[in-house]
Amino acid sequence: MAKVVIIGAGMMGSALAFPARENGNEVALVGTPLDREIIETSRKTGRHPKFEKDFPAGVTYYQIEEVDRALVGADLIIGGVSSFGVEWFGDVVLPILPENVPVLTVTKGLMDTPDGKLLTYPALWQAKLDKLGKKVPLTAVGGPCTSYELVAHDQTHVTFCGNDMEILRTLRGIMATDYYHISLSTDVVGVESAVALKNGYALGIALTIGINQKDFGLDSPLHFNSQAGVFGQGMKEMYRLLQFQEALTLDTLGVGIGDLYVTVYGGRTRLVGILLGRGLNIDEAKAELNGVTLESLVVAERVTRAVKKSAERGVLDLKDFPLLCHIDEIISEKKPVNMPWEAFTYEQF
Amino acid sequence: MAKVVIIGAGMMGSALAFPARENGNEVALVGTPLDREIIETSRKTGRHPKFEKDFPAGVTYYQIEEVDRALVGADLIIGGVSSFGVEWFGDVVLPILPENVPVLTVTKGLMDTPDGKLLTYPALWQAKLDKLGKKVPLTAVGGPCTSYELVAHDQTHVTFCGNDMEILRTLRGIMATDYYHISLSTDVVGVESAVALKNGYALGIALTIGINQKDFGLDSPLHFNSQAGVFGQGMKEMYRLLQFQEALTLDTLGVGIGDLYVTVYGGRTRLVGILLGRGLNIDEAKAELNGVTLESLVVAERVTRAVKKSAERGVLDLKDFPLLCHIDEIISEKKPVNMPWEAFTYEQF
Repeated sequence: MAKVVIIGAGMMGSALAFPARENGNEVALVGTPLDREIIETSRKTGRHPKFEKDFPAGVTYYQIEEVDRALVGADLIIGGVSSFGVEWFGDVVLPILPENVPVLTVTKGLMDTPDGKLLTYPALWQAKLDKLGKKVPLTAVGGPCTSYELVAHDQTHVTFCGNDMEILRTLRGIMATDYYHISLSTDVVGVESAVALKNGYALGIALTIGINQKDFGLDSPLHFNSQAGVFGQGMKEMYRLLQFQEALTLDTLGVGIGDLYVTVYGGRTRLVGILLGRGLNIDEAKAELNGVTLESLVVAERVTRAVKKSAERGVLDLKDFPLLCHIDEIISEKKPVNMPWEAFTYEQF
Repeated sequence: MAKVVIIGAGMMGSALAFPARENGNEVALVGTPLDREIIETSRKTGRHPKFEKDFPAGVTYYQIEEVDRALVGADLIIGGVSSFGVEWFGDVVLPILPENVPVLTVTKGLMDTPDGKLLTYPALWQAKLDKLGKKVPLTAVGGPCTSYELVAHDQTHVTFCGNDMEILRTLRGIMATDYYHISLSTDVVGVESAVALKNGYALGIALTIGINQKDFGLDSPLHFNSQAGVFGQGMKEMYRLLQFQEALTLDTLGVGIGDLYVTVYGGRTRLVGILLGRGLNIDEAKAELNGVTLESLVVAERVTRAVKKSAERGVLDLKDFPLLCHIDEIISEKKPVNMPWEAFTYEQF
């Protein structure tokens, strides 16, 4: 039995309490400053306000002020913040963590640099740790896993990545259950890039659903030819971006494609894509979503910025990324949706 | 304007009458001996009995006895038979076709040989043509396209493949519309293998839907973690099989993955997968489908046979194909569904 401390009580962090606890570990769930009500509610009711099922018995709950107490004796710390909590996690959490206790982060995303590179969050955090002169093994989880389906015990296959295979094996031992299956990879850049990239492309696929609703009526049946056409194109562009990241392997592509598939059906990314496809501009779509900032939009903008920089330098060709470029002009330039179907076609000799 | 003759009035052959005719061509639809009622009904009502929309005005209909008359002046012949009509098409149709008029076939499938090779239908037909000493340029269409969505004018991206790029460009000119987008490829083995292989894997993904219905109730919501996990695994196995076919390119993989995506949502393959996942054995599932023989089952069996032969020879490793092997044992050995999740996991250094 190990002690697992989850910092960040959003849906994904909280969902990992299920396999962690059901596998027999001690589990402490610590809220960020934004999670105050979630922790309060979970303490009172034993249930996360967004889940349809109680936490397993025995999970304990902590407000952020109590984090030091929660961390005592930790064997594994799960970083459960969204990509908008990346800086907070680096600036506030990393400094207070015990040394040599592995961190497993669920945060998916990439950060672009002025010279057109795409950095993973573990790389950003590692730089902070190096400055602090602190040793904390950073690992991350990628692959197709929506929180509510993990809670429902749907069979799930994810990949843990990190530099040290021995540590990864230990983490798998702590977290694996008969419904939570874990692959291991030392290719952190590959796994993290794959699962970040899929965000923008899932939005692209969802656009076609909205386009059809505009063309054929809100109640028209779902059409899959157009979804599949964009899915295939998205896969090709992800493949090229993984090459660009020097991180293309069949395993990482598999992680990314599985994650793309699940994200097409997942929550807000799908919703904003449908709204845009129906003809709303990006401001109107965001307003419908009550101004929630979406990770998929941020990733698409960052990746496009990096791709354009690299295209200027002749490293990439924008013609290879017509879908990404269209998604970006919808988001950044508020252009109307007009899927560039002919740009997806090719002649192969 | 060209004259397009479609031989085979099943759903896919008939659906191609829409872009062909709407693009301004003369279109003749010829039924096989099994399509007698379809042709009769279409003549009377102007509508295919399985479509929700009339054929475009001007399409003409022929019974198989009238095929010679239909063929007069043909510029393009579309072969619209299912994979169960492959022999009939080779033995009966090819001999009566005019020379030098291209054939575009919609039939998706592969045939395995005793020494573990997988042949495309164009290769089989080419052998027949060579025996006849006849010159008929054979081309094929692959990629994500369900017939009823093509009829509905959902945006669709397919790939025409054949040996001669000039002929392919001519065919694109005849068939392309503002909703039917056409890529071209001289990689016939790649495109045809990709779109055949996806059949078995789509069945694998559908299994998870049935498994969840068994575990959580028939009315339980769809879960996508498990679908996505199997989708990612299916992509990896398809990638390896395209390598085995010496036909792996990013374009062919894109065709196959798009086609896999659309097939998960399409008709009988999905249905039989769900029935098997719920716990029916293969005989019971077939009985539910009124004994209809499914292309996906046939392809999965043939591909597994070829993979096993090649594994015996040391060319392939069965460990790389746990999903295919499980699908095959469900179909061939009537084993119960028990998705080998742990066999999908890996350690990547």
